[in-house]
Amino acid sequence: MSDDTAGLERALASLLENYNELNASYIDELDQEPTPLQFMRYVARNRPFIIRGGANNWPAYQRWNARYLVETLGDSPVNVASTPNGLADAVLSQDGKQIFVEPLEQTEPFADAFKSITARGRGEIDGPVKYCQTQNDNLRGEYLALMADVPASIAFAHVALDRKPDAVNFWLGDGASTTALHRDNYENIYAQIRGKKHFLLMAPVIAPCVEERSLPLARYENCGDGGDEKADYGMKAVVQQPVQYVPVPTWDPLKHSKPPNSLGEHLTTYKVDLEEGDMMYLPAMWYHHVRQTGGSEGFSCSVNYW
Amino acid sequence: MSDDTAGLERALASLLENYNELNASYIDELDQEPTPLQFMRYVARNRPFIIRGGANNWPAYQRWNARYLVETLGDSPVNVASTPNGLADAVLSQDGKQIFVEPLEQTEPFADAFKSITARGRGEIDGPVKYCQTQNDNLRGEYLALMADVPASIAFAHVALDRKPDAVNFWLGDGASTTALHRDNYENIYAQIRGKKHFLLMAPVIAPCVEERSLPLARYENCGDGGDEKADYGMKAVVQQPVQYVPVPTWDPLKHSKPPNSLGEHLTTYKVDLEEGDMMYLPAMWYHHVRQTGGSEGFSCSVNYW
Ligand SMILES: O=C(O)CCC(=O)C(=O)O
Ligand SMILES: O=C(O)CCC(=O)C(=O)O
Repeated sequence: MSDDTAGLERALASLLENYNELNASYIDELDQEPTPLQFMRYVARNRPFIIRGGANNWPAYQRWNARYLVETLGDSPVNVASTPNGLADAVLSQDGKQIFVEPLEQTEPFADAFKSITARGRGEIDGPVKYCQTQNDNLRGEYLALMADVPASIAFAHVALDRKPDAVNFWLGDGASTTALHRDNYENIYAQIRGKKHFLLMAPVIAPCVEERSLPLARYENCGDGGDEKADYGMKAVVQQPVQYVPVPTWDPLKHSKPPNSLGEHLTTYKVDLEEGDMMYLPAMWYHHVRQTGGSEGFSCSVNYW
Repeated sequence: MSDDTAGLERALASLLENYNELNASYIDELDQEPTPLQFMRYVARNRPFIIRGGANNWPAYQRWNARYLVETLGDSPVNVASTPNGLADAVLSQDGKQIFVEPLEQTEPFADAFKSITARGRGEIDGPVKYCQTQNDNLRGEYLALMADVPASIAFAHVALDRKPDAVNFWLGDGASTTALHRDNYENIYAQIRGKKHFLLMAPVIAPCVEERSLPLARYENCGDGGDEKADYGMKAVVQQPVQYVPVPTWDPLKHSKPPNSLGEHLTTYKVDLEEGDMMYLPAMWYHHVRQTGGSEGFSCSVNYW
């Protein structure tokens, strides 16, 4: 306990180097689903893997095109996250201070949301960036009509962990949406259905590198004055009252490929690109930063199981 | 990285409290062997378990009494660790400095070693404390004649981890031998055959509590001057040259039930007593301190798989 800061830095650097030495510098790629036992070996080692084409036999993989989605969901109301720039749940500088901004959430008919997302995705319109990303078990809620197109649970994980998924989530967006670096306390099975997802993954051990800070929680609101409209479509990040502080990584891997501290050089990041039909296991507490590219119809959509 | 020591202590204390909240305050007891998948769930959660009577159907459990062991091994040479006090691989104060002392290792006929251990165990003789504890896969080496009495591998672990044991070890001692607090980088399946073992277990997260220090490596040697003979049977701890420093926990749970630092109060220790026929899974990197009690014939013996 009498370590000085330099000693602590050395200890953390050697922790990172040990991790790098003991683990592969790549993410395993399987060409078929693992058995429950093979899956548990990854869980036990806390390592992700990818199954190329793992969701190719899901009805969703065949069916989910623009026409099918709009016909199936029609005008049923869905929750849509909007931001001026595609950066939801992200760190922003405002009046020289860092804040953590959540998106504006609005309910609108699916068909309208889908139209804005895809028209923007194809570059036909300008406007706020919309992302359907509720992560509240929405495939068994708002998007229930699509649930029949995906498995109720992922068999190898269900058997291995001896539990059903806590949540099944549908994600729909265009190339402008980015999910900031964060981690979740859930074992995650992620399937890409349309478009691509570009993950940057980092093991939990790198926590001391991410420059975590407690920042005031803000949310985009429509201020309606239209003054600055061109840049932010009348949206403004407003710090919520009473002020609530949330711990968030402030390192943005899009701005600096290594975190701006002495530990950065010891960090391993794993790039994973999921194509249509690919699945990934992301262990709980792994950091991830996610970008996406729209598919041939201008949208990207995914399903994940927690 | 700018945390001061107080901040670091708070962070470590809350890490320990989180562990305590998220985990049971006891070690699971099973009444039969787990399936490979059930086993992997323990591996994945990094939690030990006990199988009461798990080795009751091993031939060793029926056969291993004094007469059988001596008949089977006879005068074949075995490596025996000797110390004046039963504290092998332990921290000792010498000339006001802490050192880490390994036992004197000698080869002697099994029958002789067995006789000294059991005679001392029954209180019939005085003398150095002997412990057969080589941990170098000795059941497939020196003690090969006994290997037929135990499984070649533990089926549930072999299937789950998809690998054979790196080592199968035989342990033989009396109630005077104590194994100091330490941890091993191996998944460990431990079976008690005769006598009892009393384990104190602690999860890897408690590492900051154990007061680890780099101490000079010493070894007991026969100095033969007989001066101090009564207390130490002519043995002396000699620091090895050139001096080599080894990192060891300096907290001795027999001397202080909690480590003498501010984190001690946040520590959970698990007491596990293995009776004849009991098995235990001890995950890699768990701290353990082990005492033993001789059985009806004055000795304790165990088998473990790494
Ligand atoms: O798909 C995304 O944009 C983010 C996915 C994610 O963060 C998750 O599945 O936890
Ligand atoms: O049985 C003993 O004395 C110690 C056992 C031990 O340390 C181990 O199995 O790793």
